[in-house]
Amino acid sequence: MAETPRRAAGRRLQLPLLCLLLQGATAILFAVFVRYNRETDAALWHWGNHSNADNEFYFRYPSFQDVHAMIFVGFGFLMAFLQRYGFSSVGFTFLLAAFALQWSTLVQGFFHSFHGGHIYVGVESMINADFCAGAVLISFGAILGKTGPAQLLLMALLEVVLFGLNEFVLLSLLGVKDAGGSMTIHTFGAYFGLVLSWVLYKPQLEKSKHHQGSVYHSDLFAMIGTIFLWIFWPSFNSAPTTLGNGQHRTVLNTYYSLTASTLSTFALSALVGQDGRLDMVHVQNAALAGGVVVGTSAEMMLTPFGALAAGFLAGTVSTLGYKFFTPILESKIKVQDTCGVHNLHGMPGVLGALLGVLVAGLATHEAYGDGLESVFPLIAEGQRSAMSQAIHQLFGLFVTLIFASVGGCLGGLLLKLPFLDSPPDSQCYEDQIYWEVPGEHEDLAQGPLRAEEPDTQA
Amino acid sequence: MAETPRRAAGRRLQLPLLCLLLQGATAILFAVFVRYNRETDAALWHWGNHSNADNEFYFRYPSFQDVHAMIFVGFGFLMAFLQRYGFSSVGFTFLLAAFALQWSTLVQGFFHSFHGGHIYVGVESMINADFCAGAVLISFGAILGKTGPAQLLLMALLEVVLFGLNEFVLLSLLGVKDAGGSMTIHTFGAYFGLVLSWVLYKPQLEKSKHHQGSVYHSDLFAMIGTIFLWIFWPSFNSAPTTLGNGQHRTVLNTYYSLTASTLSTFALSALVGQDGRLDMVHVQNAALAGGVVVGTSAEMMLTPFGALAAGFLAGTVSTLGYKFFTPILESKIKVQDTCGVHNLHGMPGVLGALLGVLVAGLATHEAYGDGLESVFPLIAEGQRSAMSQAIHQLFGLFVTLIFASVGGCLGGLLLKLPFLDSPPDSQCYEDQIYWEVPGEHEDLAQGPLRAEEPDTQA
Amino acid sequence: MAETPRRAAGRRLQLPLLCLLLQGATAILFAVFVRYNRETDAALWHWGNHSNADNEFYFRYPSFQDVHAMIFVGFGFLMAFLQRYGFSSVGFTFLLAAFALQWSTLVQGFFHSFHGGHIYVGVESMINADFCAGAVLISFGAILGKTGPAQLLLMALLEVVLFGLNEFVLLSLLGVKDAGGSMTIHTFGAYFGLVLSWVLYKPQLEKSKHHQGSVYHSDLFAMIGTIFLWIFWPSFNSAPTTLGNGQHRTVLNTYYSLTASTLSTFALSALVGQDGRLDMVHVQNAALAGGVVVGTSAEMMLTPFGALAAGFLAGTVSTLGYKFFTPILESKIKVQDTCGVHNLHGMPGVLGALLGVLVAGLATHEAYGDGLESVFPLIAEGQRSAMSQAIHQLFGLFVTLIFASVGGCLGGLLLKLPFLDSPPDSQCYEDQIYWEVPGEHEDLAQGPLRAEEPDTQA
Repeated sequence: MAETPRRAAGRRLQLPLLCLLLQGATAILFAVFVRYNRETDAALWHWGNHSNADNEFYFRYPSFQDVHAMIFVGFGFLMAFLQRYGFSSVGFTFLLAAFALQWSTLVQGFFHSFHGGHIYVGVESMINADFCAGAVLISFGAILGKTGPAQLLLMALLEVVLFGLNEFVLLSLLGVKDAGGSMTIHTFGAYFGLVLSWVLYKPQLEKSKHHQGSVYHSDLFAMIGTIFLWIFWPSFNSAPTTLGNGQHRTVLNTYYSLTASTLSTFALSALVGQDGRLDMVHVQNAALAGGVVVGTSAEMMLTPFGALAAGFLAGTVSTLGYKFFTPILESKIKVQDTCGVHNLHGMPGVLGALLGVLVAGLATHEAYGDGLESVFPLIAEGQRSAMSQAIHQLFGLFVTLIFASVGGCLGGLLLKLPFLDSPPDSQCYEDQIYWEVPGEHEDLAQGPLRAEEPDTQA
Repeated sequence: MAETPRRAAGRRLQLPLLCLLLQGATAILFAVFVRYNRETDAALWHWGNHSNADNEFYFRYPSFQDVHAMIFVGFGFLMAFLQRYGFSSVGFTFLLAAFALQWSTLVQGFFHSFHGGHIYVGVESMINADFCAGAVLISFGAILGKTGPAQLLLMALLEVVLFGLNEFVLLSLLGVKDAGGSMTIHTFGAYFGLVLSWVLYKPQLEKSKHHQGSVYHSDLFAMIGTIFLWIFWPSFNSAPTTLGNGQHRTVLNTYYSLTASTLSTFALSALVGQDGRLDMVHVQNAALAGGVVVGTSAEMMLTPFGALAAGFLAGTVSTLGYKFFTPILESKIKVQDTCGVHNLHGMPGVLGALLGVLVAGLATHEAYGDGLESVFPLIAEGQRSAMSQAIHQLFGLFVTLIFASVGGCLGGLLLKLPFLDSPPDSQCYEDQIYWEVPGEHEDLAQGPLRAEEPDTQA
Repeated sequence: MAETPRRAAGRRLQLPLLCLLLQGATAILFAVFVRYNRETDAALWHWGNHSNADNEFYFRYPSFQDVHAMIFVGFGFLMAFLQRYGFSSVGFTFLLAAFALQWSTLVQGFFHSFHGGHIYVGVESMINADFCAGAVLISFGAILGKTGPAQLLLMALLEVVLFGLNEFVLLSLLGVKDAGGSMTIHTFGAYFGLVLSWVLYKPQLEKSKHHQGSVYHSDLFAMIGTIFLWIFWPSFNSAPTTLGNGQHRTVLNTYYSLTASTLSTFALSALVGQDGRLDMVHVQNAALAGGVVVGTSAEMMLTPFGALAAGFLAGTVSTLGYKFFTPILESKIKVQDTCGVHNLHGMPGVLGALLGVLVAGLATHEAYGDGLESVFPLIAEGQRSAMSQAIHQLFGLFVTLIFASVGGCLGGLLLKLPFLDSPPDSQCYEDQIYWEVPGEHEDLAQGPLRAEEPDTQA
């Protein structure tokens, strides 16, 4: 490699020092602030009279586990489509999300469950922390292959704070509904990452183009990610909703929406594909847009038909985005979007926010009955009309776009700090810079029988 | 490729048009008919007095998610064993199941939850729709690699209707018990697919034989499917059973049965293998037969020993089927069964139906106590003797075989419509007809270090 | 192969005969002893007045399913990192665990739920059996690639008995707490396997070194195992704890501990890696040490900070163990530890036991309130002081180490029986001895387009 020893020595220290520093800091903050909440504390739980079956754990933990699988298996493997970047995709997802879980437990805790000087944690804080990690991984998708792990940790350090702040403004100050995070997770994560990628624009990335594609088996690994994201998305959108019918309905809407985005993705992919061939990039990504687009509205009375229509639209827009918009984004707007997060999270996230505006604006006492209290408490209590709720939802989208854009700029400037280890333009999408990669015994790398047929080397 | 431009143009249009047509049709039917049920509707749920903890969601959703994983991860990756057909196996599973979920929500809804002009949906309709998708994917296994995606969608269009009708006849008209679907899912799906494959017989399939095997890593991808099917099968069989002891017992029986089919599969595979070697095909498939064979009886008082014995038998029959019967099926009966669904779903399904006959016939008030009402309501209410229930169970098997055979014939004739895009005999088991396959940079396809060793190409 | 026909014939018979014998024996014992418990029996469940929602099933089954996934997906794929041993890693895990589940249902049943001549089974016996299978698979990790499947089954036959006995001594006789099994599972499994590997020492293993590494895609398969173990570990540690706050707190502690072990693993791996590169072996394994280290104490009032600190320590020790101690273990102590179970399960297990000593010793009525009864019943009832509980915990560790060491010796002697089929030193880590391995069509083994480019063979 054309790397100087000093660079190598610098890299040797940056990642470990940053990991240790961040871990030390969060550990101290945990010691000072974080406490078990009433549902997890041995003493607190036994105050008052309640059955073990009432513990929030039993209502939320199965959903949490599905979300947890999406974050680590889903995002990790989905990004492993690159031929030489599988270790980094899965590994850095692992590292980034592990840090984000700790850090967002603190940040979200300060905003949402800070009482008497302490942050109280339980299954809901775990779900919220995983959601925040999801946003960080969406941003990671935009810059996949073009940044080092120390840079990524710094990005997470900043993004988690802004995520928590934006979420606080939307959910707590504006009274916006966004259970599955069309705005707070997808729109925020996507535009944060896209703006950051724009700041980090690599003019000579062309030199790494030969590594940017997939190979046959890397596409199958990526499908592991896709399928786990797809099957568990109903749990994602419903994990933080109100119990009972709310959680149940959110699941159902998300399930229908995803089936429709899958059909529209296959339809559009074949329609725009060369000789009518399907494109794995579309199937791996756009088929998931149905989960994103109902992130805000799945909790509402969207109706099963509404879920199908929304999913269909999202799959269509997302597939067309991959085909026609991503190249323009790169060539004209100078945004290099490795995973096409603009198509999977950006546009469907904005669409999902707008769908939330529409469905909130149509809310009536007749349609929701006594359930209005749990879905739109401010309308039920007479503090807001449905139209006012809709306008607040729309305002929440603008706030999110502003937080994401400003945050992405700040993040980009942070990651451009000259002493930070960053891969050169010609060595992007390449595990070997950061990982010890096997394969030196080249003759063994190709299948179990190859070593016995040395004549192929002759 | 030896393909004319006209064929390519035809293919370009068939799949997208069919996807759009089917999605449009189901969307319209959803708009007209499908409504949230009492447990998912914001207004309906709040009528009457009940706790959120009573919502059916909390009793069935974890099982549903396991079933959902089996359909998309399990079936998809299990079929990815072919060396050049992984994109199609995983991708068409994705497409077919997504469509089947929508379509069977409608079909099963008309048969099972149609009241006052509307179909009411919730977690049970999601489970049932996934079950129906399972039957479609079993049939897909028989014809894997020999049909195009438009043909597969048409197959699903027909099969879902016949599945719903057969299920209605068995469960509602005949009062047959079949929680895990030994008959309604496995027997039906297998014989539908096998008869269909017989109608589609490809005399020159020999020309594609060199693609029909696996490669090392494709076998490992297939094991992902196998293991996920195996671990979640207890949830599959128990997902629709009565709550409490019924669900609990079904899980336990299925768990034991699967452990026994695994041991008998390894035993038989080594016994009949060349030089005592184990065969991945057996391990990937026959080890699962224990789940199929208790599909009818796991809900009953099968006893733990009964579960072990049934699983052992199923693993044995299935492994021997792969070794000795599949070649005969192809050469003598002209049924080309790509995944050997006859061995995994066909024979074990029939065995499972017969086991259900036996166990139902042995039902006594002593053994079931007050639980008889939930397992065999007609016996508990005195409308039937155990013997009569057993005879109904047996009749259910015959009905299923007839529906499957007639359906498979109709399906075969439908798929032979001459204008439908179908792969030629010499290009079966081949992703490249339907997918843009990476690998043009051949030197990158073999491992991360290959590009640096161009001398191997010399 | 340099194998005599007699050896091949011997192998042909050993595995199937042993499978059939063991399956026959457990089936007979099941018939005689195993019965549905009150929660799974149709008649028993309906005695007395309780709601279906009270069935233990709903409190434990989601956790059980996560544990089940860890055993079969997690362990199976984690061990698939070897380039030519993926079939055996996943397949023998499958076989061994399937047998261990049956056998430990009997052994643990005799020790824990034997009443009136019968063993009563339900979801808790399933969880316990899976735990025991986990210990067997840990031992398998130490000898991975160096033993045949018949040897492995014999090992499981012995180890399950000793596991059950050790667990009985600790939990029932000594009143030791060890919900997640730092002692009973990890320490026991690791040292049983390590001592066994020491007895089986293969002096000429060097001849198989060229197969001992990974290839690029085998490392990605292994990451599937890692990630599934990581995400579901909170369910593992909490599966058998007391309901309500106990289960909830155990999950939370495990979740935090794992995030910290991930950060310390990345930090240390880069710090000690060549040129600061990360090592997949560390990430695949040491990042999991956070789950092991809180196996005893996660149920206790460890505090979130305590969980982070414990996880950090475990990841550090484990990574340094892989880097510096494993080579010494092999060269000096003559223990060949294929998967490094000493680093992932051995040292973190012992640390976890000691952490349990510490946290138990610090237990106060103030900290646990009325929850003390469920975490430390003997302290709550005044039969023991916290210090006495701590001493019992420490004694439990010594008992475990003795059972594991003696058991490993016995196991080693058993597996050295000369007539047992065992791979020669020069053919270790090699699927082809036991499996029919595809790849004869070498030109197809390297990617979909290779066959069309025969010139690369010239």
